[in-house]
Amino acid sequence: MRIRIDDPADPRLDDVRDLNRSDAAERRLVIAEGPLVVGRLLESRFPVRCLVGFPGRIDSFLAENDVPADLPVYEVSREVLAEVAGFDMHRGLLAAADRAPEPELGEVLAEARTVVVLEGVGDHENIGSMFRNAAGMGIDAVLFGNGCGDPLYRRVVRVSMGHVLRMPFAHLAGTYTTWQRSLQQLTDAGFHLVSLTPDPGAAHLADALVDEQGQPWGKVALLVGAEGPGLTEHAMRVTDIRARIPMAPGTDSLNLATSAAIAFYERDRSLLQPRSE
Amino acid sequence: MRIRIDDPADPRLDDVRDLNRSDAAERRLVIAEGPLVVGRLLESRFPVRCLVGFPGRIDSFLAENDVPADLPVYEVSREVLAEVAGFDMHRGLLAAADRAPEPELGEVLAEARTVVVLEGVGDHENIGSMFRNAAGMGIDAVLFGNGCGDPLYRRVVRVSMGHVLRMPFAHLAGTYTTWQRSLQQLTDAGFHLVSLTPDPGAAHLADALVDEQGQPWGKVALLVGAEGPGLTEHAMRVTDIRARIPMAPGTDSLNLATSAAIAFYERDRSLLQPRSE
Repeated sequence: MRIRIDDPADPRLDDVRDLNRSDAAERRLVIAEGPLVVGRLLESRFPVRCLVGFPGRIDSFLAENDVPADLPVYEVSREVLAEVAGFDMHRGLLAAADRAPEPELGEVLAEARTVVVLEGVGDHENIGSMFRNAAGMGIDAVLFGNGCGDPLYRRVVRVSMGHVLRMPFAHLAGTYTTWQRSLQQLTDAGFHLVSLTPDPGAAHLADALVDEQGQPWGKVALLVGAEGPGLTEHAMRVTDIRARIPMAPGTDSLNLATSAAIAFYERDRSLLQPRSE
Repeated sequence: MRIRIDDPADPRLDDVRDLNRSDAAERRLVIAEGPLVVGRLLESRFPVRCLVGFPGRIDSFLAENDVPADLPVYEVSREVLAEVAGFDMHRGLLAAADRAPEPELGEVLAEARTVVVLEGVGDHENIGSMFRNAAGMGIDAVLFGNGCGDPLYRRVVRVSMGHVLRMPFAHLAGTYTTWQRSLQQLTDAGFHLVSLTPDPGAAHLADALVDEQGQPWGKVALLVGAEGPGLTEHAMRVTDIRARIPMAPGTDSLNLATSAAIAFYERDRSLLQPRSE
């Protein structure tokens, strides 16, 4: 259902209006930018409301993707889109979807073998990169603990290259008492809880992911805190083991998404048994 | 030598003038921003020309760092600095240094056990993150092949958290013929050349970093290409082995600096013998 809109005030464009404002639609919707991510939104569990783009971008997108016949596709000029969105959207294609309810924790954990749990991670770029890395390296789900940013924020969607739309995620409880209890739910579900820490006294990551016989744990939950403060002692205390990525003396700790990627790699590596070594 | 400057046109501030312009001083100087990185510049091989900052920032920096008594320290207001630099520099402290000649390749390789070689990596943010990860994980030097960005660009300095100022780096030759010959120099120096590639037919990274007896190679050069195109076939052909980081089907390849960090981790891991497994 392709419709040309020339009036920036047209209410049909409200879903993509003033995207940089704090009360923007992205707080209640999911916004995807660029053909790759818009394509992933269309395949996701989120009910797409509309596509908006430059005529040429829409032409090429429709030629390569299945778009429901009844989905509104709004064709706009570059100038109109810039005025509506509030900035020059050079990719020229975006889509808005409704936020869908999160799956239940039990449902997310049912089939999962490896999950990552974030605590206090407010930085949207870090969350986005973390989703991209998690998707790339076979992590089954992302769980959010206390003090984390919104995983459906536009910047997360973009930096994750849309993987946040595909990968299951759920929020654990929000207060400190229940946060520990939430972690207990993971233990009860059979997960081995591994905290990432720069503490030089912690076990080497590779040792933390295998049991005393060198066999990988069946189910692992990797806990990661924000760059700088790291995980709270509160969270670390309920985990089974603290793991470190060895760092050269006098250097800074790694970026959160990078640390997580190394942990994902090591987890995958531990599951490849036997190796040639 | 602390000097207050109130005139934005004062030529003594030329080292930090118009930093976002393409003909900016940063093309011929090294610019460090913020106390951490300015501190690292002062400890580096680059001859520092001046410090520029807000009075309060200079006070706290001088209280915590050894600054040569004859180094010009220019005190400016936020408004003056914004006008000179061309944007609001909220960190309020920067320093300029002369570029120093690069060390000879032979000198860089002499003591090195692990080096990383970049090919076609133009993105300054990627180069900066790569330096940060390399420093953090014990890499000895960074070598630049064809088509790479300027490692002393301001953004690289910032994103690397100043590690580009501390870590030895050198450029390999610039044409395709000599590029292969440059890689040959690494082989001649006893390095085992390992190309990173997303090719699913390549060896697992862990296997590529050890010999047939499972022992780590004494010297390793890790070759990394740009996100997207990756290494040229030209470069890969002269390496000893092609290595992959396993990826989940249908996902995108990892960010360059993230892939490199995983390779650095695995290299370090391979050198820790014996392990508990």
